[in-house]
Amino acid sequence: MKAHTTYRTFNTEQRREWIRITEDVQAAVDESGVEEGMVLVSAMHITAGVWVNDDEPGIQEDALEWLDKLAPPSWKPAANAVAEELLPDGGDYRHHRGGEDNGDAHLKNLLVHHQVIVPVTDGRLDLGPWQAVFYCEFDGQRNKRLVIKVIGD
Amino acid sequence: MKAHTTYRTFNTEQRREWIRITEDVQAAVDESGVEEGMVLVSAMHITAGVWVNDDEPGIQEDALEWLDKLAPPSWKPAANAVAEELLPDGGDYRHHRGGEDNGDAHLKNLLVHHQVIVPVTDGRLDLGPWQAVFYCEFDGQRNKRLVIKVIGD
Amino acid sequence: MKAHTTYRTFNTEQRREWIRITEDVQAAVDESGVEEGMVLVSAMHITAGVWVNDDEPGIQEDALEWLDKLAPPSWKPAANAVAEELLPDGGDYRHHRGGEDNGDAHLKNLLVHHQVIVPVTDGRLDLGPWQAVFYCEFDGQRNKRLVIKVIGD
Repeated sequence: MKAHTTYRTFNTEQRREWIRITEDVQAAVDESGVEEGMVLVSAMHITAGVWVNDDEPGIQEDALEWLDKLAPPSWKPAANAVAEELLPDGGDYRHHRGGEDNGDAHLKNLLVHHQVIVPVTDGRLDLGPWQAVFYCEFDGQRNKRLVIKVIGD
Repeated sequence: MKAHTTYRTFNTEQRREWIRITEDVQAAVDESGVEEGMVLVSAMHITAGVWVNDDEPGIQEDALEWLDKLAPPSWKPAANAVAEELLPDGGDYRHHRGGEDNGDAHLKNLLVHHQVIVPVTDGRLDLGPWQAVFYCEFDGQRNKRLVIKVIGD
Repeated sequence: MKAHTTYRTFNTEQRREWIRITEDVQAAVDESGVEEGMVLVSAMHITAGVWVNDDEPGIQEDALEWLDKLAPPSWKPAANAVAEELLPDGGDYRHHRGGEDNGDAHLKNLLVHHQVIVPVTDGRLDLGPWQAVFYCEFDGQRNKRLVIKVIGD
């Protein structure tokens, strides 16, 4: 069995950003020489996720608006009445007692999930025609790491 | 290391449907000859998920009603006031500007997640007594594919 | 390829509890002798999850409060107006018709997801500095099992 591990570091301009990484994942598979196996793509931070979805800007904007309603940030006004009620009782996250302000990013990470596995078949990512892999930053503007691990033969 | 890949195509009668696929996944493991390893079960579309849960119709109905509140479709009236507020501002998904009407299915896919990994031990899916594997269609009535990839020895 | 499987049984004091299991997962990797590969950590019940997040009590309390709003239990009063509207129409889960009272735990399991995969590099869990692995019990006070499966070389 072959195993190959690479890391990527992101430092996004925006606090929240979607970054397409399909080609980085394929590059890691190419370097590994694996023809049949799986590749794990996993954020190494707890305020970032990995999402397989359509590379369509409307979906990404829709998802970010919706995530802000379901897991509202407390560093900006609640998006609407639902978001306000989904904030913690008292209006701020307990996690912020230590000086942090990214409590919402931990919950967004839970919703989006921090990792995906892509099957590798004949040396290629075995994705459907509209599936692209995205790194989802929810608390950026500083160095964050991602691990890509390929195993197989 | 052995690797074995199969695909299944679904064309559901309903737009949204839960389909039990535990036996299809076990069949793929049987064909692979793998005794110890893992099997990845992953939707190849971005409007369908894979869920491990109880094969109990009440849970499935509960989950569909709840998903419609959390990720409301805009092609039918909002289920209630919360669902209406969780729709995008303006009332419709940006993704629909190109003529699509499945914006909610992308968000349901995010909540349910599009894949699971099942451990394979002694040639069998190593599931708990109430765990069954379901394909979760959120935008059906057309051909959709699923990949099942077994690796191991 | 090596494969190694271990199981852990939890019987929590509280109905809902977060239990750190990073060290159990590393111990399974140590026993396996795997230097390069992956380890799957997966709840064998459908009312429990596995979460990779910060080992910070504030986050865990925040998450439990928030999960109770998004996937409200019907065995205690709804946390607020949003939680009340996210309960099923009629006020109780269809799943409870058979005498169960854990309908919310199935939905929390869907949100948190029941499994994670951790890459193994040089014999160590390849986690980021703040990533810890937690077993997330949503319907405890009875025996529940978890499977840890390591594969690699």
